[in-house]
Amino acid sequence: MAATRDQLDGPGGGPPGGGRTTLAGIARQAGVSVSTVSKVLHERSDVAATTRARVQRLLEQHGYLARQRPAGTALAAGGLIDFVISELDGQWAMELVRGAEEAVHSAGLGLVVSATHGRARTAGQWLDGLAARRTRGAILVVPELTGGQHEELRRLGIPFALIAPVEEPAPGVPWVGATNWPGGLAATRHLTGLGHRRIAVIGGPPRRLASRARVDGYRSALEEAGLPFDPELVRYGDFTPEPAFRHALDLLRLPDRPTAVFAGSDQQALSTYRAAATLGLRVPDDVSVVGFDDLPFADWVTPRLTTVRTPLAEMAALAARMVLRLLGGEQPETTRVEVAVELVVRESSRPPR
Amino acid sequence: MAATRDQLDGPGGGPPGGGRTTLAGIARQAGVSVSTVSKVLHERSDVAATTRARVQRLLEQHGYLARQRPAGTALAAGGLIDFVISELDGQWAMELVRGAEEAVHSAGLGLVVSATHGRARTAGQWLDGLAARRTRGAILVVPELTGGQHEELRRLGIPFALIAPVEEPAPGVPWVGATNWPGGLAATRHLTGLGHRRIAVIGGPPRRLASRARVDGYRSALEEAGLPFDPELVRYGDFTPEPAFRHALDLLRLPDRPTAVFAGSDQQALSTYRAAATLGLRVPDDVSVVGFDDLPFADWVTPRLTTVRTPLAEMAALAARMVLRLLGGEQPETTRVEVAVELVVRESSRPPR
Repeated sequence: MAATRDQLDGPGGGPPGGGRTTLAGIARQAGVSVSTVSKVLHERSDVAATTRARVQRLLEQHGYLARQRPAGTALAAGGLIDFVISELDGQWAMELVRGAEEAVHSAGLGLVVSATHGRARTAGQWLDGLAARRTRGAILVVPELTGGQHEELRRLGIPFALIAPVEEPAPGVPWVGATNWPGGLAATRHLTGLGHRRIAVIGGPPRRLASRARVDGYRSALEEAGLPFDPELVRYGDFTPEPAFRHALDLLRLPDRPTAVFAGSDQQALSTYRAAATLGLRVPDDVSVVGFDDLPFADWVTPRLTTVRTPLAEMAALAARMVLRLLGGEQPETTRVEVAVELVVRESSRPPR
Repeated sequence: MAATRDQLDGPGGGPPGGGRTTLAGIARQAGVSVSTVSKVLHERSDVAATTRARVQRLLEQHGYLARQRPAGTALAAGGLIDFVISELDGQWAMELVRGAEEAVHSAGLGLVVSATHGRARTAGQWLDGLAARRTRGAILVVPELTGGQHEELRRLGIPFALIAPVEEPAPGVPWVGATNWPGGLAATRHLTGLGHRRIAVIGGPPRRLASRARVDGYRSALEEAGLPFDPELVRYGDFTPEPAFRHALDLLRLPDRPTAVFAGSDQQALSTYRAAATLGLRVPDDVSVVGFDDLPFADWVTPRLTTVRTPLAEMAALAARMVLRLLGGEQPETTRVEVAVELVVRESSRPPR
């Protein structure tokens, strides 16, 4: 330890000049890996005490760490969790931010919200800046982050959890999703139960696990009811309004028109309302519509939307709590959670005429 | 300065024990006010260089400041702007977060998002914790913060700006609003121009400046058109769906039913759609509806909503830029901005039958 201190203390005990030392430089000086330096910086518990002390002094010396944070201000001064999302738009995103903020705030930490605008470069910049920031953990709703970038996060010792990942993450990567397959099953069973025999589905992007799971749930419900699966009635959008509107128009113009549409999102359901109105059809009299998500407006549109409630705020809170538990040095009981969705029957579905 | 250094350096040059010194304690040691200490902590430029150096050393000593932050990490490590809002719900809040995040992120800083849930206590806790955090500025959408609390923020040297304040803030408090009076005027002129003679209005809470300005704009448009102002046709809600639904039901059940409703928010407009449907009336055939805000769903509901577009994201970005300018030691050209709103005519308004 004496040698290390000699190395650290500048002339006269004052701070050394320069101050441009990188984390890699500090790692070299401390004789440890960059990952260990990052773990100390982010206050992870899995570093030996003597190593931690050595690295901490170097970090203090180079201005990465306050020398001695007064009790009680540790969290306030540095207790930040990053929430990174592709786009901050729509109520879907808002519900996630709301849930994450509540969970993180309850733990006495702050939530830093960033949008990547779907750009891999922005996501990469966020990642590059992480090591130098005081971020202690991250909640990610960023499909453009690669498995390699997840690996990089782990190497930096920054606990993170994904929400609604596009694909199955690598083993050990914590994530929270919704029970999409049972959701698709419940929505379609509701329609077959009402007596519908020709039911269309407008899904999200086919590369998303969530979309495929919902469509597979739909298919299973048809099978249960002894109904054929007609590929013509299956369309994929991207959860946004415009493509869904065109798909719904196409579907409702088919000679053998479906009597019900299961939409992959509440927004797509609104597009289906509009396509129906454009063609002079009424919801639910001429066509039943079921959505997915149960965003706040679903209860206020006319007719009130039958939909599959996805507890988005709860999902984000769960992801936040996974990160907080990892921060505390605990392993979450499970690293992959699917939160149960629930069918909410309102006014947009009825038996076919 | 020598005396100060003696006072600061612990035995052997190591950090002193305790570490529980408050900012008030540091102020005492430095012989300056708490406000000056806070200004140094938050990197304000209006502190004399020698005072700054003295206070900085004390802050470093007590762990409030990293000793010497490497170039380039200063912003990343401490460059945070707080965004505080009463409730993180709905697309209104999302648009504000989106605009603030973009402006703050472009400046190389991070946005910490907090919700107070409308509780004065939570707002107070946020304020109490500020001095010890590295927050450099704040964007506030928090009606429950009092004028006294704004004063406290100024005393701490933390630049802030308000968005859509409930009441006129004290002189010198920077804020961004929307041109609500012209918005109310434009919405109502549109309806009188279509030939409506009996037009109802469902406003927000009467204590909010925005609500009163919109209703006054409505009243002026009626005067212009030589139409009487009928207090029976003016209702106040709280921008949320349920009270608006009840008001709309009441209005549409009047013996001399209004042929048009100007709603104070898009959500209230949706409630009016629903009240109309409940009574077997069609929009716009039996009743025209105009909203306010132009949230994303306004373009996707059926019928597409005629509304007054409020550039919420732009308002938040403006507030963020005011704060950033103050941080840079500049005075904004103006501290009170009303961003122009604009009527967007869609399908929910037509001449009366």
